[in-house]
Parts: sequence; C-alpha cells; structure tokens
Amino acid sequence: MTSSTTSIQIQLAARPEGWPAQEDFRTVQIEYGELKPGQVRVENLYLSVDPYMRGRMTDAPSYVAPYALDETLTGGAVGVVVASASDAVPVGAHVLHAFGWRDVAQEDASSFRIVEEIDGIPLSLYLSMLGMTGLTAYVGLTAIAGLQEGDTVFVSGAAGAVGTAVGQIARKLGAARVIGSAGSAEKVELLTARYGFDAAFDYKERPVREQLAEAAPDGIDVYFDNVGGDHLEAALDVLNRGGRAALCGAISTYNDDDKPAGPDNMANIIKRSLRLEGFTVGGYGHLAGEFQPLMAEWLRAGEIAYDETVVDGLGNTVQAFLDMMRGANTGKMVVRLSRS
Amino acid sequence: MTSSTTSIQIQLAARPEGWPAQEDFRTVQIEYGELKPGQVRVENLYLSVDPYMRGRMTDAPSYVAPYALDETLTGGAVGVVVASASDAVPVGAHVLHAFGWRDVAQEDASSFRIVEEIDGIPLSLYLSMLGMTGLTAYVGLTAIAGLQEGDTVFVSGAAGAVGTAVGQIARKLGAARVIGSAGSAEKVELLTARYGFDAAFDYKERPVREQLAEAAPDGIDVYFDNVGGDHLEAALDVLNRGGRAALCGAISTYNDDDKPAGPDNMANIIKRSLRLEGFTVGGYGHLAGEFQPLMAEWLRAGEIAYDETVVDGLGNTVQAFLDMMRGANTGKMVVRLSRS
Repeated sequence: MTSSTTSIQIQLAARPEGWPAQEDFRTVQIEYGELKPGQVRVENLYLSVDPYMRGRMTDAPSYVAPYALDETLTGGAVGVVVASASDAVPVGAHVLHAFGWRDVAQEDASSFRIVEEIDGIPLSLYLSMLGMTGLTAYVGLTAIAGLQEGDTVFVSGAAGAVGTAVGQIARKLGAARVIGSAGSAEKVELLTARYGFDAAFDYKERPVREQLAEAAPDGIDVYFDNVGGDHLEAALDVLNRGGRAALCGAISTYNDDDKPAGPDNMANIIKRSLRLEGFTVGGYGHLAGEFQPLMAEWLRAGEIAYDETVVDGLGNTVQAFLDMMRGANTGKMVVRLSRS
Repeated sequence: MTSSTTSIQIQLAARPEGWPAQEDFRTVQIEYGELKPGQVRVENLYLSVDPYMRGRMTDAPSYVAPYALDETLTGGAVGVVVASASDAVPVGAHVLHAFGWRDVAQEDASSFRIVEEIDGIPLSLYLSMLGMTGLTAYVGLTAIAGLQEGDTVFVSGAAGAVGTAVGQIARKLGAARVIGSAGSAEKVELLTARYGFDAAFDYKERPVREQLAEAAPDGIDVYFDNVGGDHLEAALDVLNRGGRAALCGAISTYNDDDKPAGPDNMANIIKRSLRLEGFTVGGYGHLAGEFQPLMAEWLRAGEIAYDETVVDGLGNTVQAFLDMMRGANTGKMVVRLSRS
C-alpha cells in the first residue's frame, strides 16, 4: 500500500501581539520524499492544541524555545503508521509524537512512541488524561505541591483539560476537599456533577477573592494555578500555614501586553510559610512511568471522568486553538483528522 | 548576695498603625516576689530588637501570636543569673532567654539556656551571629533555598543583621558570587570591603531593577529576601531557571497601611520554574545543632566579620527599635544594660 507524500502543515506567519488571530498563521503544502531507512510516515488522527503553545509563539525567553517563524508548528499528536522503513515501528501501529499541526508526518522512527488502545478509551486520551495533560496534573500535585492525605485543594480553570485531571487525581490521592473555579455556570455545574468537585464557582460572576473565601471556610492546603492574576491573589488569602502552590499556567495573562501588577498579599508567603513553585511538565518526564499505569488503571475501572471538545478537520486547527485560549472547550480540546 | 526584686519593663500601650512611635510604648515597674523553687533571677546584659517584633505589635494573623496590649514585651536577651533556686542554673551563669524589654527577669530555670563565652567574642553574639540571626541566614540558604556550590546569591537589606550573616555564610557554603543591596553608600562600602560581597549597590540611588541587572549579568540562583517590594520584583527579573527565593522579611512593607501591589513579573515563576518559599526560623530550631558549632568555629578562626550597633540603657530600647526599623543600624542592633 502506498500513501501520500503530501503533507498539509500550519506555520507561524507572524508573532501574535496580544490575542493571536488567524492572520498569524498560514497553511502550506509540503512534499516529503521517499522514506529513508529508519523513517516512518504517519497519518495523524488527533492533534493537540494547548495553552502553552501561546507562550511559544512569542519570541521571549521561556521554558521552551519559541516556535520559529515560517516553519511548521509542533505539538502533541496521535497517528497511525502508513508507511515504514523501520522494523521497530510497523505499518498500522498507533503512535504518539510531537509532529502536530499537520496531517502527515514523516520522521525517524525514534521520534514516535507506540501506544496501545485501551478498551472503550479513545486514542486521543494519550493527548490528555493519559498524556501530558494528566502528567502535568500529577506532577503539580505530587512533586511540586506535595499533596498529603486530608488536604483541601483548590484548582483554578478547573474545567480545562489540566483542571479536570487535577481535581480527580487529587481526590484519588487522598485530598479531603476539592474546590474549582470555571468561567461559566455550565462548567461550574459540570465540576460538581461530573468531576466530583466538592465546591465550584464561576469566576466571572463575583470577585474570586470573595467566592474562594466562601468555598474554603477552613482555608486550602494546596493551590494548583492555571490562571494566575486574581486567582493567585485569592489563593494567597486562604492558603493555610505551610500551604503549597503549584504554578502551572497563567492563562489570564498570556495575551496581556501590559505587565499586570502582582498579588497585593505577597506578605502572606512569609507570614504563613507558604511555598510557590512554578513548573512545566518537561522536567518531569521521568514520572510518566509511575503515573501512566495508575491513570490507565483508573480509566479502565471507569473511575475518571473526562470530556473532550473535538473539532473536525485540519483546516479548523487554528480556530480550535483560538477558541481554547478563550475557554470555549470543556476538558481537552483536540482536532480530529479523517484518514485520507 | 541579695539582688533587686524590682524590674523595669517596657509594655505595648497601643497597637501602632503605620510607623510605631514612642507613644505606643510605656515603661512600668514590677515587683517580683521571692524566688519560688526552681526559679532564677537574671539581670539582663543585652536586649535584642528585631524587625519581626513589628509584626507582633499588630493584631493580625501572623507566624507568631501578637504581643498582648498592656503586657511586657518579650524578645531575645542575654543576662547573668543573680539569684537561683535551681541547681541547673547557678548564680553567675550567662543565659540566653526570651525575656527581653526589661532589666530583670525572674522565671523558671527551664526558660533559660546557659551559654559559654568564646574568647574575644562578645556575649551579645548569642543574639545575632550565634543565635537567631545567624540561624535564620543558615536556614534560609540551606533548608529553604537549597544553596549549591557555585551559585550566585543576592541578599537584600544586606547590611542588616541577617544580611551580613547571609552573605558570609553563603560564601562559606560555596557560593561563587554574592551580591547585596543596602540603603546608604557607607553600608554599600562595608558590604564589599568588610563582609566580602562581590558586588553591592545602594537601593536608594537608582531603581533596584536596573542596579541588580547590572550587578548580576549572568543572573542569580538564590535570592534571600529581607525587603520585599521592588527588591523581590527585581530578583524575579534575574533569577535563573530553577532559581530559589527564600522570603524571610519584607521590611519595606511592614509599616504600610495600604496593600502594596505585588511584582509585575510573577509569570517568571512559571517560565523559569522558580520556587519562592516564605519561612520563619521558628520552625527550624532543630537545625541549631548543626549550625552553631559551624558558626562558633568560623568565629574562633576569625573568618566571620560582624558589626553591632550598641545602644546603652533600657530607657533607649524603644528608640533603638524605631531606629532599627528605619535602618539606622549596621549589623545587629542591641541594647546594652549596665549591671545594677
């Protein structure tokens, strides 16, 4: 069976200032040559769009190198091998890899990791609960925040992909109470009804400070921050003595051109011996080996709820990314491609 | 030999709002009764005045309980036993204890710790380098910031008691470069000429942000914060990936009634995987056993420089405290009492 050597790919055409827009991207067609020894050709089934990608579109020092202008973007993807010049990665294998933002990828076999389907669990979960998203939640709760049995945990942006993982993993690991914030009444309802949060509130409704204080009358021990800004400030108000904050994202500020003022209650860090630690999952890949079997087991047992917002077609990838930045997704936002 | 049962003591008369003033304090005369079994009477030789005391004068949740109104203040002191009903703490012993802000203390012997004089080292050093001040520096650098050999360390308020300890201990523990800030040209000169700092600057002269960036062209790995505010913001600018900040004090904000805006660059915590941790030495008393022998050895060897700003007379204690809050001291501020 032959397969197409043509690949449609999305490139960064301009560095966004403030909110990204369609004009910052362009679509190009690439012709791959024949496979070289050791290479495989993969048709992508699912592409990941994630908040961290916004950071890489800016040319500023950050935790990962910025995307190059006029080159194809990268990101998590799951695909199926359609041609192979490698014994290790045969045709038909499902693979996880970093060559997203395109329909077809052709690279050395060593860049692809074969994954197994779990009955009833979509392959796309390797981009979310079973992949970077779930690992990010796990690392933040364990290695960074040192979650202990009986802790009260607050997660901001809790209806996002990482947030839903944080709430449920925290409960699995022994948290006594889990509180989440989200940006609509529907999401708030999902958090308590579907994801097992004990309390949740809509941060667009009233000041986060007020709502968090009400939801956490005995304070919180762990804060998992996806949002920054007023959420971090509110958390610093209620973190108990010895509390830990895992700072994972600050989506509230990613598209600000201005430098936002920080929390007005930094003094609490000293008064209550708090610890704030920023992290990115990149440095904790070694924990995947302990995390994935746990999560696979929980998923098999039906103990983890998840949502995906699935957008169809490579041509909608940029819009999916923009919508995700504005919070249009519940759970993980993925782009689904049909086989050619 | 009898000794006076009269004690002159300083009480908190009102909770200061903003900067404390003489009117917030009052002096009273107490008559102790005869010693009860197990008690000792101590004439104080040195009283400690420290920044943390300002926090205790405010009736707000903090790391230590607030001082009670209309009761005698407490704080570190070194004295000599003048009467004893305890075999464990005999007359003539020098003792370290918490009953400062008075000339004579009379309490159970278990509240006093006998200390030894080291040749050529004043007893008052048990209130500073050999005591809480030195331990604070040691704990912040080791247990909190995880100082590693070759690190570049920045200390704010470096000419203060804790600051001079931080700079020198950091060097002893392997720091490659030590940078300090202070509030006058004279103090800056002391930092480099006497305390072995590699670079120092006057934070009143130009923005801290500018000066720190110049002094740390390759960034910093550890920040020991005594000041907060613009200093913390400047440190967040230059902390290298994986950098650690030990937040010990925020003297710049203690007398603010307003809530100051936090750093405008909190996003760096995530971008560079930074860790900020507040601490107070109270939770780390168990490290005194590893710290004190080290410091005693360094002092005996003449390898640690120290300054004291010594104020004479109990009647000047409040003024000494107020002057210390405004940075009038170099090194540790102590009040010396003459034997009655």
